[in-house]
Amino acid sequence: MPSSSLTTSQRTVLQGIFPGDDYLDTPEAACIYGTDASRRFSLPWAVVRPRTVDQVRELMAWAHREEVPLFPRARGTNVVGGCVPQGGGVVVSCLAMNRTLEIQEEDFTAEVEPGLITAAFQADLQARGLYYPPDPASVRFSTLGGNVSTCAGGMRALKYGVTRDYVLGIEAVLPGGEMIHTGSRTHKNVVGLDLTRLLVGSAGTLAFFTKLTLKLLPLPPAQATLMAGFKSLADALAAAQAVFQAGIVPVAMELMPVDVLDCVAKIATPPWSDSTKAVLLLKCDGRPEGLREELRLVRLALESKSPQFIEVGRDGDAEERLWEFRRLINPASFRLGKDKISEDVTLPRSKVVEGILGIREIGRSHGLPILTFGHLGDGNIHTNIMFDAELEEQRRHADLARDEVLNLVLRLGGVLSGEHGLGLTKRSYLERQVGPVERGLFALIKRAFDPKGIMNPGKAY
Amino acid sequence: MPSSSLTTSQRTVLQGIFPGDDYLDTPEAACIYGTDASRRFSLPWAVVRPRTVDQVRELMAWAHREEVPLFPRARGTNVVGGCVPQGGGVVVSCLAMNRTLEIQEEDFTAEVEPGLITAAFQADLQARGLYYPPDPASVRFSTLGGNVSTCAGGMRALKYGVTRDYVLGIEAVLPGGEMIHTGSRTHKNVVGLDLTRLLVGSAGTLAFFTKLTLKLLPLPPAQATLMAGFKSLADALAAAQAVFQAGIVPVAMELMPVDVLDCVAKIATPPWSDSTKAVLLLKCDGRPEGLREELRLVRLALESKSPQFIEVGRDGDAEERLWEFRRLINPASFRLGKDKISEDVTLPRSKVVEGILGIREIGRSHGLPILTFGHLGDGNIHTNIMFDAELEEQRRHADLARDEVLNLVLRLGGVLSGEHGLGLTKRSYLERQVGPVERGLFALIKRAFDPKGIMNPGKAY
Repeated sequence: MPSSSLTTSQRTVLQGIFPGDDYLDTPEAACIYGTDASRRFSLPWAVVRPRTVDQVRELMAWAHREEVPLFPRARGTNVVGGCVPQGGGVVVSCLAMNRTLEIQEEDFTAEVEPGLITAAFQADLQARGLYYPPDPASVRFSTLGGNVSTCAGGMRALKYGVTRDYVLGIEAVLPGGEMIHTGSRTHKNVVGLDLTRLLVGSAGTLAFFTKLTLKLLPLPPAQATLMAGFKSLADALAAAQAVFQAGIVPVAMELMPVDVLDCVAKIATPPWSDSTKAVLLLKCDGRPEGLREELRLVRLALESKSPQFIEVGRDGDAEERLWEFRRLINPASFRLGKDKISEDVTLPRSKVVEGILGIREIGRSHGLPILTFGHLGDGNIHTNIMFDAELEEQRRHADLARDEVLNLVLRLGGVLSGEHGLGLTKRSYLERQVGPVERGLFALIKRAFDPKGIMNPGKAY
Repeated sequence: MPSSSLTTSQRTVLQGIFPGDDYLDTPEAACIYGTDASRRFSLPWAVVRPRTVDQVRELMAWAHREEVPLFPRARGTNVVGGCVPQGGGVVVSCLAMNRTLEIQEEDFTAEVEPGLITAAFQADLQARGLYYPPDPASVRFSTLGGNVSTCAGGMRALKYGVTRDYVLGIEAVLPGGEMIHTGSRTHKNVVGLDLTRLLVGSAGTLAFFTKLTLKLLPLPPAQATLMAGFKSLADALAAAQAVFQAGIVPVAMELMPVDVLDCVAKIATPPWSDSTKAVLLLKCDGRPEGLREELRLVRLALESKSPQFIEVGRDGDAEERLWEFRRLINPASFRLGKDKISEDVTLPRSKVVEGILGIREIGRSHGLPILTFGHLGDGNIHTNIMFDAELEEQRRHADLARDEVLNLVLRLGGVLSGEHGLGLTKRSYLERQVGPVERGLFALIKRAFDPKGIMNPGKAY
């Protein structure tokens, strides 16, 4: 059984592996490693920061032998408590392993360490005409290791897919210190079982990543953004469907229903009016002529559903101005309540209307504002339940509302999470979506990688 | 331990589950189920053909209890013996489970049974303006279940990815008869470990698929094919690189080096001359204007490397005429030898030249023609070692040559198989590419799904 904190001799071992500041255990120093964007907190016994694969191997051998829980961590931007060292143990930060090891331009691949910040990597690629599409909202802060651990999504997933689709291979260390190399630098590989995609999204529960081999694309040279306002939610959703029916998969297709519009209008001056009941925000990319053709077809599709306005941003600044309204949703939502329960349920696209109307009704019945918005294109609807946590009655209603939202989504053939995962805060919902036989397989696979259960215990599944 | 054939009471049980012709056990009837495109053969004890999920569950419960090996099978188009019932057991054909259960146009998803022929499914989609891109060479004969089992690739993988990228969920039955439902109908889902992609490419070793949920795209309305001839292999490869550097990922990019050209010219009248040393064949698609722009850029890129000719096919017939030369490679290669060892090694794109030249040198040193050709774009180079199996000396050299080819590919950072998998015939090569720790994980995962090892024993890993 894990001890309740580190012994003196355990501390000495860790200090030997991680000299100087790379080992921290004062409460003041370790404090910030006890939380993440979920705002849950649990003080770790210690924090270590490996710089080399050998340090990771020594750590994993030691922790396995001593049965000390390890909590892998990057920038802690996840919102479900995936990095919180609940129950106690050692936080392992990958942030000192943050190098781009190689960008193989001719192969359209790159090898990176897990602590590299995704946007920094993307900027480096852009200068070479290369492209790594995944763009979680946290892209400027979060890391490739964290993104792979959570199979991060983002706006561009509609056209380009999620993180999983860009991971060709993983080098990782198992509990016990053995290394594994999964996948390859090649774009095709069907040798053996697909351990690579099993590790993607495994939330730090199976192994500690030390190197990622990523697939790249050529950078699309041109892009543009369209915003269209409609006089009803039904019109907006019909317009979205008309875009798909025209054979177009935009890079991103976001929806902002009326309550979101009203909320954002409290803190900004938007292009929509009071009579606008829903806004679509679309991004397209490609080469100049192809993009022009696509924009023309998108406009035609949108116009077939009588929009109140269409604004087009054709350069970076004009695009950013339109996207800024999307980014303001989360800050603006706090005008409706001091606290927020945020879900990222995902529905089959044909069930999005029913889902949004149903969620709105749930909010009404509990007397709480619930904002629904987000990645309409892939059905990944972000749901903010706003309340005041200091009022017990509101807290109770918020929890009940969440419960009803999740049940509604499952009833409509959706899933509990499209991007965030279950982490710590939603783990108890797992069995609503996943049956006992599948959970049994999760447990056996977990045991195959981590027989003593030391990797990020209490998380995800 | 498995028995060496079925007992009378076992036969009675199977006949009870599978009435009439859906149970076969005379050698004459069972004979064709003993082989596949590998031409290996082993007579099964019996063949069964489930029509319902309940039959599959009964079968899997019974086989698990009795420890009878099961060999799942679709159309047997794989070339590595993946369907051969080596060691004996019951072949389970999925061909009677061949319905399209639902095409959800608005969701861009479909639910199908595993025995549905891929091209039939694609034709059905095409009529609705929808698209399922994976196109293994066997697409007109092979099934979606077989394609998912092997993670089939194909020409279009360069732009569109492989089968894995289009599988959203799987319903399957485990040994013992329990059912699992992995993934979902949604395009995003990060709940629990990714069992879906673990099942893709698992070669019938983990579970029997009963339903597949597939991701669809809008059908690209226009396409075109370009063929370009060059006076050296180096020029052709430089031209290919110029296409990528222009930011273009074609649907397909195939390479035919000089020995392949000479071979095809023996049975057809091609557009190339004796002085042509390499041919590129490219396919592009999109909307009309975007495609025109792309074709112009592709031409510019190709022309920068002084091609001897460029032919463009802009409609179905003209395209087919160009692709026919590619399809003739395999039949034509038998002009060089009665027998063939066929590999589908895959290299990082930057190593393709070195790989092709090295393989040619291996052929020379063994006095055997070795043709290399295929999916240049993703480095998946098909390699045909031609020989006469009746001559012991040639047989020995062919085996040695294969050995050297595989070692060369691994030395260059490539993998043993990009599309075919290891099946039965290449299983002994697994440990050259995959280390003992990873193989240990394969074994534990296998045991999690199939503790008694009854599913397609002796295959893949």
